[in-house]
Amino acid sequence: MKFRIDPLPQPGSYPGTAIVVDVIRATTTAALYLRAGAKALVLAPGVEVARSLRQDGEILAGEVGGLPPEGFDLGNSPREVGAVAGKTVVMATTNGTRAAHAALGARHILLGSLQNAQAVAEVAAGSGGEVAIVCAGKEGNIALDDLYTAGVIGRRLQALGFAPEGEMAHLALFLAENPPLPVLTASEAAKALVAVGLGEDVAECARVDAHRVVPRFLGMRGEGMVFGL
Amino acid sequence: MKFRIDPLPQPGSYPGTAIVVDVIRATTTAALYLRAGAKALVLAPGVEVARSLRQDGEILAGEVGGLPPEGFDLGNSPREVGAVAGKTVVMATTNGTRAAHAALGARHILLGSLQNAQAVAEVAAGSGGEVAIVCAGKEGNIALDDLYTAGVIGRRLQALGFAPEGEMAHLALFLAENPPLPVLTASEAAKALVAVGLGEDVAECARVDAHRVVPRFLGMRGEGMVFGL
Repeated sequence: MKFRIDPLPQPGSYPGTAIVVDVIRATTTAALYLRAGAKALVLAPGVEVARSLRQDGEILAGEVGGLPPEGFDLGNSPREVGAVAGKTVVMATTNGTRAAHAALGARHILLGSLQNAQAVAEVAAGSGGEVAIVCAGKEGNIALDDLYTAGVIGRRLQALGFAPEGEMAHLALFLAENPPLPVLTASEAAKALVAVGLGEDVAECARVDAHRVVPRFLGMRGEGMVFGL
Repeated sequence: MKFRIDPLPQPGSYPGTAIVVDVIRATTTAALYLRAGAKALVLAPGVEVARSLRQDGEILAGEVGGLPPEGFDLGNSPREVGAVAGKTVVMATTNGTRAAHAALGARHILLGSLQNAQAVAEVAAGSGGEVAIVCAGKEGNIALDDLYTAGVIGRRLQALGFAPEGEMAHLALFLAENPPLPVLTASEAAKALVAVGLGEDVAECARVDAHRVVPRFLGMRGEGMVFGL
């Protein structure tokens, strides 16, 4: 069986299993909300859509420039996921949601990060069919942190018997030979967090195989994509 | 002083020194023609232009699908550069020439490869101003082999006091932590050579710091770009 790695989302080209990666911070934090007991997660393409999708008793999470917008309960920091047990979290993200939308049509859509790298590789391998790792990138540009994470997940897929297909998969696999923190720290996404005082989020996102929670796409709620366990 | 790495050529954006990289095989072989005593090198954008630019007594070098076209003296293999001493070589390449053309307007244009990595970094560092490493890529797609080579040259620029600018420079530098032959072998360019029986060229292109010959842009001959020492 094969896997490929897309440095940027290619809408409509994922028939099998798609692993969406926006490691700093959307897909890292998404898994942590579920791990903290959230009932479900609604990925919304932006702050206004998230506001309109939120129902009574639900948590609103999102960020503009790394910080929670006015009226939001949480700011998408992986270090602040406490009060979500038993609740649905409506989560506004831009790049991560765009990548997840590009994967619509795939048989399975999973959210991957360094923290769940081994677990997401195992779920993908067990789902049958080809696997594509879809990097979110940043505003249409390739993101070092996402490509690196795709390579780390790809190494685990290799160990599970999958073969890399295409030059970008090999590039990511070679990138993944480096330790996580220096690579993530060199990314633009990390620098943007450091600039608003959230540098510690980078170290949190760089923890490899920290847990085994894998968000899976369950269906749509309007423009929002619902993920759960 | 800073350097950046462009995974694909960005025409018209190189005011300082541009190092053009098409490691399999154009910029590797170009340096070897000069090292073998060629008087000058004319980079031509394609086989027909090369034919029209060749003057009496000059050598015609080029490839289609890795092999020399009809009437050509040489096939751009780094293992076949013998009979060029004292002569001008008109060299047809597609991706490499396109990248060199994109660098027109730069104060200095150099051809870089793994074989002259240290030497080209030193020449660039000594030329004053900012440095950009311009990867040729393959038909508009990012090429693993070129980005890796850019990283290897970038490591040497760092050692000379230059600082990487931009996420792609960091990506290439992390890629360059891997040994050369496995990376080059995983590239599409290498696979295409293996498919026509020229796999040994890949090992030749993967030799790091094998010599100190750095081709420099001297001027135009029609559509051709003339390089020499």
